[in-house]
Amino acid sequence: MITLSSDFGWPYPAAMRGVIAGRSDARIIDITHQFPRGDIHTAAFWLREILPYFPPAVHLGVVDPGVGTERGVIAIEAGDHVLVGPDNGVLRPAALALGDPRKTWDLVEVEAESHTFHGRDVFAPLAARIHDAPGSHPGALPDMEPNPSPVELTFPEPTIQDDLATGEILVVDVFGNAITNLPGSFLEPAFDSSIVVNNERVPAVRTYGAVSSGDRLATVGSHDHIELAVRDGRGADAFDVSRGDAVTIRRD
Amino acid sequence: MITLSSDFGWPYPAAMRGVIAGRSDARIIDITHQFPRGDIHTAAFWLREILPYFPPAVHLGVVDPGVGTERGVIAIEAGDHVLVGPDNGVLRPAALALGDPRKTWDLVEVEAESHTFHGRDVFAPLAARIHDAPGSHPGALPDMEPNPSPVELTFPEPTIQDDLATGEILVVDVFGNAITNLPGSFLEPAFDSSIVVNNERVPAVRTYGAVSSGDRLATVGSHDHIELAVRDGRGADAFDVSRGDAVTIRRD
Amino acid sequence: MITLSSDFGWPYPAAMRGVIAGRSDARIIDITHQFPRGDIHTAAFWLREILPYFPPAVHLGVVDPGVGTERGVIAIEAGDHVLVGPDNGVLRPAALALGDPRKTWDLVEVEAESHTFHGRDVFAPLAARIHDAPGSHPGALPDMEPNPSPVELTFPEPTIQDDLATGEILVVDVFGNAITNLPGSFLEPAFDSSIVVNNERVPAVRTYGAVSSGDRLATVGSHDHIELAVRDGRGADAFDVSRGDAVTIRRD
Repeated sequence: MITLSSDFGWPYPAAMRGVIAGRSDARIIDITHQFPRGDIHTAAFWLREILPYFPPAVHLGVVDPGVGTERGVIAIEAGDHVLVGPDNGVLRPAALALGDPRKTWDLVEVEAESHTFHGRDVFAPLAARIHDAPGSHPGALPDMEPNPSPVELTFPEPTIQDDLATGEILVVDVFGNAITNLPGSFLEPAFDSSIVVNNERVPAVRTYGAVSSGDRLATVGSHDHIELAVRDGRGADAFDVSRGDAVTIRRD
Repeated sequence: MITLSSDFGWPYPAAMRGVIAGRSDARIIDITHQFPRGDIHTAAFWLREILPYFPPAVHLGVVDPGVGTERGVIAIEAGDHVLVGPDNGVLRPAALALGDPRKTWDLVEVEAESHTFHGRDVFAPLAARIHDAPGSHPGALPDMEPNPSPVELTFPEPTIQDDLATGEILVVDVFGNAITNLPGSFLEPAFDSSIVVNNERVPAVRTYGAVSSGDRLATVGSHDHIELAVRDGRGADAFDVSRGDAVTIRRD
Repeated sequence: MITLSSDFGWPYPAAMRGVIAGRSDARIIDITHQFPRGDIHTAAFWLREILPYFPPAVHLGVVDPGVGTERGVIAIEAGDHVLVGPDNGVLRPAALALGDPRKTWDLVEVEAESHTFHGRDVFAPLAARIHDAPGSHPGALPDMEPNPSPVELTFPEPTIQDDLATGEILVVDVFGNAITNLPGSFLEPAFDSSIVVNNERVPAVRTYGAVSSGDRLATVGSHDHIELAVRDGRGADAFDVSRGDAVTIRRD
């Protein structure tokens, strides 16, 4: 199985599907191709949240604002999975979530038809070759060699002191839910009462349905982070926050 | 085969694909994940229109504004198909269209990692288990029991008196076509002449191509309902109608 | 393998998937369903660019503003591929790119449930039948006969005189990149210097990353055409061009 993720919108992802289908019998499953263009952090967040729900697979993840520059092409072995993409950190959080990232490999010679679409010309062929290699092992390919220091990417750590948590908005999802880096466990004691988010009091609830349509709420999202939301509305707008903005939450 | 439908946009549907792919070898086909958020009626309409074109399958359909509340989790046997989703009516019209909805089953104990994403934690695993059960029979699972009274959902019936039909807009599609609950058979006698829609005269035609670009028209859509459209434009805007609005059509 | 392309948005493509899955075991791969509505030229461009990356397949491509009128239903044999769709030119450039378009076939009797959705009622069943015919040969079907004169569609040819190239914008992609009909080879000698596009001087570069975020550039896209772009922005807006607009590029 090969999964595909990118910020390519349409129709570019189809060229990757074709390249893979022409070189491997692997099942192809799309994650999404709607990552915000060039936004490595948002893509890294979602890959970390989504890929662990998959069985062992080769995961192609391409958000690559440095296409055509000197950035490397890597494959990371993590648990029974292999992640393939640019060496810009986008795959690192997912690799840590999938298991011990045992080893990272570099593609030695990058040959591409184009300077602008390595998804089609470099990453997709490599994913197909790794998938079909013995044990889907990148090291089985003659043109891959160990990379001892892949580019790291980490999400900011929150600060929690007693009843005060300080963090930031990691991503805003397609519904406008503002997902923080604050752990759900901080909110749980406040369920069915209220908390103070950036100086405004809002209910802390287990589920959107616990408030009326149009009302604001703080809940624990499916990713186990605290999420600022509006039932049937856009939390990021109502709380006036964007990716990277600071968030403080105070319990009583 | 398992089909997937939801209002989850992206990237959440990918988690459902992963969960299913990890538990079953079933072929996975996406219907859409762009149902308007929380709009049970629109999703119910499209599931009814689309699913009958599929061969026997397990159809997962999740539009679930009540996630995390006490609403049930059901599987409906209909013809050779099984529909899996929340017990809020979203699956009922499709079940009736797929064949005699023989029996509805309830999931007895709902255990979920999250209170906000039962698509991933409850419905996807259940769909995989039903697909792989003997005969894809929900009753073969020990934790399903008969549900004698699932939540109903019906679309409003139109009133037709001689040459006057009164109904409403059921959905507006992605192109802005306003789809009514009025049967195509009411329009057919007027083809190649004109009718009066909400007091404005428009041509009744078999196909968009029968009028000039930008012109309004009434036609019979692929769903066999009367549809208010604009060639190369948005009918809902031109006719100034939204879902739920009343529509009267008068033949001469 | 059957690939699907259309301007149907959602959920209509799912009905085509269902019809095919009910009639054939063919693998189904979506190209895109987001072609601009009724825009035959844009769809023809992308099919020509994308389909050659696929292994031999039956390619269903439906952008069909003439649905319900007298336009024909064709299958084109090109290389080891077969293209199926309306006889309006949308498939012609792809057929030429896939190989010598050996023969075009016409569906003799078109029977459709609806006058508005031949994708579901005519093209999808035909694609499934051709896929499963001996050798995936359209001529093996009794209701197909040779079509000696399918509708042509050609893209405008550019004019190149020494250091002056005159052409037009063929399509604007989802990122706002304005793709011209000017060959990449005209730009290559100017790489790492600058050119004059419609009287404004911009850098000619191999890749987006060669300029700063927000800056304009001319590059050679993955389709081997000259492309007007803005790093992390929308080239069509910055250059104030739309599909069909004239473009002149002058090298020094």
